[in-house]
Amino acid sequence: MIKKIKSKKEDLAIDIDNLVPGNSVDCVIFGFENQQLKILLLKWKFSNLWTLPGGFIYKMEDLHSAAQRILEERTNLENIFLNQFHTFGNINRNLLHKGFKEKKLDKNIFYSLDEKSRKWISSRFITTGYLAFIDIKNASPKPDYLSEKCEWFSIDELPDLVYDHIDIIKKALSYIRIQLNHLPVSINLLPHKFTMQQLQKLYEDILNKKIERSNFQRKMLKLDIFIRMEKEFTGSPNKAPYLYCIDKPKYSELVKRGIGFTY
Amino acid sequence: MIKKIKSKKEDLAIDIDNLVPGNSVDCVIFGFENQQLKILLLKWKFSNLWTLPGGFIYKMEDLHSAAQRILEERTNLENIFLNQFHTFGNINRNLLHKGFKEKKLDKNIFYSLDEKSRKWISSRFITTGYLAFIDIKNASPKPDYLSEKCEWFSIDELPDLVYDHIDIIKKALSYIRIQLNHLPVSINLLPHKFTMQQLQKLYEDILNKKIERSNFQRKMLKLDIFIRMEKEFTGSPNKAPYLYCIDKPKYSELVKRGIGFTY
Repeated sequence: MIKKIKSKKEDLAIDIDNLVPGNSVDCVIFGFENQQLKILLLKWKFSNLWTLPGGFIYKMEDLHSAAQRILEERTNLENIFLNQFHTFGNINRNLLHKGFKEKKLDKNIFYSLDEKSRKWISSRFITTGYLAFIDIKNASPKPDYLSEKCEWFSIDELPDLVYDHIDIIKKALSYIRIQLNHLPVSINLLPHKFTMQQLQKLYEDILNKKIERSNFQRKMLKLDIFIRMEKEFTGSPNKAPYLYCIDKPKYSELVKRGIGFTY
Repeated sequence: MIKKIKSKKEDLAIDIDNLVPGNSVDCVIFGFENQQLKILLLKWKFSNLWTLPGGFIYKMEDLHSAAQRILEERTNLENIFLNQFHTFGNINRNLLHKGFKEKKLDKNIFYSLDEKSRKWISSRFITTGYLAFIDIKNASPKPDYLSEKCEWFSIDELPDLVYDHIDIIKKALSYIRIQLNHLPVSINLLPHKFTMQQLQKLYEDILNKKIERSNFQRKMLKLDIFIRMEKEFTGSPNKAPYLYCIDKPKYSELVKRGIGFTY
């Protein structure tokens, strides 16, 4: 994320001279595990607050490249699907703002930084939100230098978050709902072989509503982008559901065109 | 946009100390006139290049409020529908970049500014794009202090533009195409009473394709958001098309929910 520079005092410094002022990136990284839509969060040192994986932008780096770098650093994955969804720029995006003080933000995090870095990190940042879809199984998340651990959280059970990060997550979810027919959600979040029940649960989590089963399956299969495979072995062959995989070329074409009301 | 400060030398200065560094806003303002989708552009002083209406963000101003202020200043309209669509942050967004020098960007624009302002304006800006829909008839556009005039251009006949403004316009158009079922396009761009032919032309301009007439009208009327009024007087009552207006509550509800493939 940002270069670690050890000073004489052994405290941390931020590589400020090489960074674009006033701008940052925050990533909402989605995964799907145990039939639950999840996102990756980092726990800030010296506090009970969690944060989205984020970072700053180097002067010699495009905004999109910065998001890609931060994602790769946090997940150890390359070629992740990522998509910019919104930029957040309220004046209260500022560590010294009253609202954050009330959040019992432990000041110790400042004192691990040198003075110049402290001034930098407490200024107002306009942050651009990126969302990513990854396969949790393949990722090995690691914390940045301001954090002590990384964890996946179900979107129904999020912990206390710093700044406006809860609003960033809500906006990412509402963006996916609207863009669902234009985003490669299933191909990035589901395992290679999946059941219609898993697909339905993923859609239900994203749309935050129950979907009628037979209607959903009929509509999905009619799209002609899912290939039926063998049955899933569950012990009882009669009740075993079919497994499906995605017809990649057809899927990409459909997502590009959009599944929806055409004129 | 930015405060005019006259120095002794009578040149212009930018109110830098009160602005957020490294950030700007650019607006793609859409209107519909003479059956054509148009956007508002400003002509830069001392150059043949045009620019999107844009500006900087005050330290004591939210990003969204800055966009609203800039829009109101440029159009003299209040309560405009505006929507953030994308943030642009490539390293070549910089007035001194090779690409822009090749665009024959006349340096005179610099020399109308004081030195501090010149340094500011030639640095790299990460810009957030907002789009707006307005009724051209009600707007009285006026240039900012770096521009000499304002004009509406059909999206098919755009002039040479500064920076990456052509890419910003393209992105705005592709955003509207994808979001067409979730954006209040018709209600903001069409006159109070309109014909189905006008509505179809608006959709054709946005989607950049011809639409089959009877199919379009059937789908549109089925949405149950258009109220049929009297016929338009054209001299020949038999051939005169019906005028329609929008059922506002039904329209808002449908746009919120989205016209489209539901699960």
